[in-house]
Amino acid sequence: MQYPEPIAQLIESYMKLPGIGQKTATRLAFYTIDMDQVDVTNFAKSLVASKRDLHFCSVCGNITESDPCSICSDKTRDQTQILVVEQPKDVMVMEKMREYHGLYHVLHGVLSPIEGKGPEDINISSLLTRLQTNEAVKEVIVATNATPEGESTAMYLSRLIKPAGIRVTRLAHGLSVGADIEYADSMTLFKAVEGRTEI
Amino acid sequence: MQYPEPIAQLIESYMKLPGIGQKTATRLAFYTIDMDQVDVTNFAKSLVASKRDLHFCSVCGNITESDPCSICSDKTRDQTQILVVEQPKDVMVMEKMREYHGLYHVLHGVLSPIEGKGPEDINISSLLTRLQTNEAVKEVIVATNATPEGESTAMYLSRLIKPAGIRVTRLAHGLSVGADIEYADSMTLFKAVEGRTEI
Repeated sequence: MQYPEPIAQLIESYMKLPGIGQKTATRLAFYTIDMDQVDVTNFAKSLVASKRDLHFCSVCGNITESDPCSICSDKTRDQTQILVVEQPKDVMVMEKMREYHGLYHVLHGVLSPIEGKGPEDINISSLLTRLQTNEAVKEVIVATNATPEGESTAMYLSRLIKPAGIRVTRLAHGLSVGADIEYADSMTLFKAVEGRTEI
Repeated sequence: MQYPEPIAQLIESYMKLPGIGQKTATRLAFYTIDMDQVDVTNFAKSLVASKRDLHFCSVCGNITESDPCSICSDKTRDQTQILVVEQPKDVMVMEKMREYHGLYHVLHGVLSPIEGKGPEDINISSLLTRLQTNEAVKEVIVATNATPEGESTAMYLSRLIKPAGIRVTRLAHGLSVGADIEYADSMTLFKAVEGRTEI
């Protein structure tokens, strides 16, 4: 006996999500059937809306409903700094911190020779255009992830931008706040020693 | 800065699913935005269809598109046995085994005094009606879960049905196939010793 067609299709849809295998998808599908009609309808609507109403900001590449996005069009923000991140969700994480008030630029990926991703495959050219047309920018803060690809993308950007006389900085590496030295990996520990500060 | 409204709503919808907290919901929502348009549309459609096209079989309580369900209306199945399970997905698990060819009855829950669930809150009365109107049934196999609630529901059903001269049985408890005795809990071990068989 097979699952009734509507369940089978719902299971298949859930399985397209990352980290969700057949067992979890089945559990979610059966749970969905028991959910409130309103919740399921809203779920379906927000899925469709997320594809229909969201676009990438033509200036910074962040996900937005309006173009340019609310950050790019906010003149009260510090126009001298651009923080470069890999993904739109990184912007959200930075904004949650509430301590950064400059602009952003979203690369939508990193340079990765293994995956065949070169400079033209990520959102670099529009960053250069921004820097050329906007004289106010004094610093580019590269906040790519602390992975080999993130590091090499940071180096690449630095070499491209520095000659224009713009300061290029990188987020600090070191121990997480509250972390035990005992459990830190040696690469992190090395970065923490290297970047030690006067107290 | 808040998430754009369509993402915020999608995150909220994902969070209504079991075992999905804010972090996972956010990850899924951002993943959804990058998914193929077709996949997202199909996902939304199957969500709606799962609520619209699926009903409970009026005979056994299983989830079905047609009423009565394909198992209840299949005359080649053994009409003398009814296997009682807690949830519709338990029917699917049993069917996957391919060794049971009788009928099913889905309780949609178990007796649970703590949660205030009595016999009238689960699908018991229609089981009794089935047994009264269908003389062919010779055995009721109670396959509720091996939890205290599942056990007491099994006992309750046994007391109700046995007086009518119908055999009531319960699934065997014991070691899982391939399991180490070393790691078995003592309750399972006790059941395995109690239910030992001649070799």
